[in-house]
Amino acid sequence: MRNTVGWQVEGPSPALRRTPLERRDLRPDDLAVRVDYCGVCHTDLHAVGSWDDAGGRRLVPGHEFTGVVTDTGPAVTRFAVGAPVAVGNIVDSCGECAMCRAGQENFCHAFPTLTYDGTDRHDGLATLGGYSREYVVRDRFAHPLPAGLDPAAAAPLLCAGVTVWEPLHALGVGPGTRVAVAGLGGLGHLAVKIAVALGAHTSVVSRSPDKADDARRLGAHGLIVSTDPEQMADARDRFDVVIDTISVPHDLGPYLRLVAMDGTLSHLGHLGPVTVETLDLLIGRKKLSSAGSGGMPAMAAMLDFCAEHGITADIELLPSARVNEALDRLRRGDVRYRFVLDMSDLD
Amino acid sequence: MRNTVGWQVEGPSPALRRTPLERRDLRPDDLAVRVDYCGVCHTDLHAVGSWDDAGGRRLVPGHEFTGVVTDTGPAVTRFAVGAPVAVGNIVDSCGECAMCRAGQENFCHAFPTLTYDGTDRHDGLATLGGYSREYVVRDRFAHPLPAGLDPAAAAPLLCAGVTVWEPLHALGVGPGTRVAVAGLGGLGHLAVKIAVALGAHTSVVSRSPDKADDARRLGAHGLIVSTDPEQMADARDRFDVVIDTISVPHDLGPYLRLVAMDGTLSHLGHLGPVTVETLDLLIGRKKLSSAGSGGMPAMAAMLDFCAEHGITADIELLPSARVNEALDRLRRGDVRYRFVLDMSDLD
Repeated sequence: MRNTVGWQVEGPSPALRRTPLERRDLRPDDLAVRVDYCGVCHTDLHAVGSWDDAGGRRLVPGHEFTGVVTDTGPAVTRFAVGAPVAVGNIVDSCGECAMCRAGQENFCHAFPTLTYDGTDRHDGLATLGGYSREYVVRDRFAHPLPAGLDPAAAAPLLCAGVTVWEPLHALGVGPGTRVAVAGLGGLGHLAVKIAVALGAHTSVVSRSPDKADDARRLGAHGLIVSTDPEQMADARDRFDVVIDTISVPHDLGPYLRLVAMDGTLSHLGHLGPVTVETLDLLIGRKKLSSAGSGGMPAMAAMLDFCAEHGITADIELLPSARVNEALDRLRRGDVRYRFVLDMSDLD
Repeated sequence: MRNTVGWQVEGPSPALRRTPLERRDLRPDDLAVRVDYCGVCHTDLHAVGSWDDAGGRRLVPGHEFTGVVTDTGPAVTRFAVGAPVAVGNIVDSCGECAMCRAGQENFCHAFPTLTYDGTDRHDGLATLGGYSREYVVRDRFAHPLPAGLDPAAAAPLLCAGVTVWEPLHALGVGPGTRVAVAGLGGLGHLAVKIAVALGAHTSVVSRSPDKADDARRLGAHGLIVSTDPEQMADARDRFDVVIDTISVPHDLGPYLRLVAMDGTLSHLGHLGPVTVETLDLLIGRKKLSSAGSGGMPAMAAMLDFCAEHGITADIELLPSARVNEALDRLRRGDVRYRFVLDMSDLD
């Protein structure tokens, strides 16, 4: 085994502690990656908050990170030592089902191996995430980090970025499409940047009128204040695509009513059950969809697009020793727009 | 006022009674229609079952009927006395909003006037439905009944038919599309006929294995028994479009899992809230939609298509005096596949 160190939830406290970790010895198609930067995703917050270490399981969060290849197995051809690399929220899949064959490994029928809190499909061990100094990953699930993308600010593209890229791309967003992005957080601010770069007429929907300047700075054409009934009524039926990134359960009705005839609300901000009134779909023949993560081809296409358009996340970079502060502030919504942990303090 | 007779819910009992009714005198753009045949829709059952006559309101159900024009207002040019005619579930709309201008009067922003239990937008009176011998309707909301369609069996096209036509058409169903129809009732059997005529590879999903012969007779390529986990697992991710016509609240999860990547579940069978697991949408990037009724252009297109392909409903024709028996049997699901009332016994 390879020795490294990371931030692990320990015992009943949600506080993460610096802990020695082991990584597997390289299989023929594995890379060892020195993790330089790891984004702090809402999923990490949920995982830490609901963690139960029954059965001696361990939790090391982190599933959007960038770094440098430090070692390769003998079958690896796509990466050489020293190459900049990026990893998202899945690190393996069956490779044989229809979804894997279609390049949608995120929808693998046998369920993809998650970057953390998953179970490796070969050795059966729990996967430990990117809040650590080294990660060992199968080459097919690592991505070359395109030149020109700042590796710290690019880390959130690997989860937040592809999660908004997938629906924007699948729904054919392009010049002339009217897009509304509800919620201006980690997902939302990247949705705005990508939608604008795709040529869409893009608006932000937010409870906070004070996000108007930020919305404009990100390239949006306007802000709709969701608590203002008049503004919401004016915006009714106006958007071909509504990207709902609000990270807490909420009534989808007001957002479905913004969708134009035959348009789609893509509900991305949280998992779990959602309830909609059939009439909110029926009237205007609207659609509800969701998305999360992406397949390997989508990851590659998203990274290329972001490199071409100079898109990265707006981040607050913290030494990884401040991970608990980052999680606390994320819980309170106090971040514009994504925390990224600098792992060099683990050396 | 014009005098006619119909079947009305009276007092606290759900039983309908034969009652004299008045219709308005013809406005310039009105038709008087002798109602010959009126279908019995699930909506009628809900309306009768939940009826509360507070405020002296009256309920005469019926919103899919055919008949013959008996009189016309002076501004009517599309219909002459003696013309066969068909009316669906809406009889007026604002005519000015974006939806009305787009020919989607069923989505009128000011809400369309319902054929029964609505409020006429000119005289403010409650609308009374097609379980009666005469109806007075604005010409724009009546449809010429195409030659060759049996007027009794065509009546259900005006609600059930257009409700399944709309999503099949909007979702681009055609040769090669894989369609599953869940629930083989009034809506479902018409969905099968129309999907087959559109060229789709069409399957039925039903709890009842004994519907296999009917499914084949309607043109379906097969039956999937929804209570057989193996059959449902085999059918996973196999359908571009699932038309869910099940008329009672049910878990959409098993039906969403039949939808192929980027496909759509159209939930038609009942109104009210529906709850879905986000993961059932997320995995495979699936969409949930709904539909109900149609705009006037869709009604006309659906009637032309049905005439061209010889599609009508499979009906059980009863004298209107047996309306209570029809409602009782519909409540128990004892109909293949739509009751139609013959109104000639009201003379």
